[in-house]
Amino acid sequence: MTITITAFEHSPDGGRGLARDTRVRWALEEVGQPYKVRLVTFKALKEPAHRALHPFGQIPTYEEGNLALFETGGIVMHIAERHAGLLPHHANARARAITWMFAALNTVEMPIVELSTVMLLERDKPWYQERLPLVEARVRDCLGQLATRLGDAEWLDGPFSAGDLMMVSVLLRSRSSGILDEYPNLAAYVARGEARPAYKRAFAAQLAVNAGT
Amino acid sequence: MTITITAFEHSPDGGRGLARDTRVRWALEEVGQPYKVRLVTFKALKEPAHRALHPFGQIPTYEEGNLALFETGGIVMHIAERHAGLLPHHANARARAITWMFAALNTVEMPIVELSTVMLLERDKPWYQERLPLVEARVRDCLGQLATRLGDAEWLDGPFSAGDLMMVSVLLRSRSSGILDEYPNLAAYVARGEARPAYKRAFAAQLAVNAGT
Repeated sequence: MTITITAFEHSPDGGRGLARDTRVRWALEEVGQPYKVRLVTFKALKEPAHRALHPFGQIPTYEEGNLALFETGGIVMHIAERHAGLLPHHANARARAITWMFAALNTVEMPIVELSTVMLLERDKPWYQERLPLVEARVRDCLGQLATRLGDAEWLDGPFSAGDLMMVSVLLRSRSSGILDEYPNLAAYVARGEARPAYKRAFAAQLAVNAGT
Repeated sequence: MTITITAFEHSPDGGRGLARDTRVRWALEEVGQPYKVRLVTFKALKEPAHRALHPFGQIPTYEEGNLALFETGGIVMHIAERHAGLLPHHANARARAITWMFAALNTVEMPIVELSTVMLLERDKPWYQERLPLVEARVRDCLGQLATRLGDAEWLDGPFSAGDLMMVSVLLRSRSSGILDEYPNLAAYVARGEARPAYKRAFAAQLAVNAGT
């Protein structure tokens, strides 16, 4: 069955790979599944046809036969369950990999998105200079703990998994703040993710959409 | 095998059920699994023994034989995969229920936690009065879209699932702001969750720990 995902017609990041369709493209590339992409304008995101697919009016969505999914974590989980390559076979290792997916999306992404929001929406506010360090401290607190856990390991828990795919994707969003590079082992971990052929193909595919925008 | 979870010795909410162990207790009650609880002080949360279980120094954790898990989403997912009652059998319905778990933890909880943070940590800041409405608007935007999707349905997608368990748990954290009650169908949805016998047992169990604190 054909897999169709949605992506921004013009990504706000201009093709740096930070829009969430990149996570889904990466997962599909890791498991070797071809997919089609339907591009969506900002206007169309908020219209009923797209809302029927995605209640929160965002990208990506995922359609495959009768199945429609809308949340990156749910989509990647579905891909990982249906195809080999993103979750370990052993039940306990599998549960730990899934735990890292949730840790990336709930514990680690939260302060990182908060920091992006401050930098995007509060730069002209009178409190920006005082509040920015408070939010940066929350990101450092989280990344410092993750760096301690990762240590010298290649991936978070054994071989590369959907947990790493999601964690690398989330950490990439902290790079422009400069904070990621304060943790050399995390920066190297992210670089290992970016060096994977599947990531490179996913990145190139989203860049091709956004090139010249 | 005995299941052991961790919870706060003294929950910051004094037993209102908002600490995350309640989510895990609820899931275990739904599937009828007994569990033990090890209480952890704030000091112990940050010590190496607990960090080995939970890299981010939080509760809850989950231990069962050789398996140790640490993130609420990962723990509930594990419980839902091992025992009947929290995920539909049909593959597509199952994928949608999992998607709602991720939507609760990534899309809906993010603005709700941001609002809690503002109310907890920024009340004495000079920007509080101006910033609070901006963050409240983000919560309203999110809850309004969720309310539209839920409509008159009893649960998010067919019978009660782990997706509802997580969404109700997340929405409960928005109630004290008054915003939840602005969406009567969401407030009624949360009340349906709280009325479930399994939730009541979970709530009573965490209250018993915190009573009198």
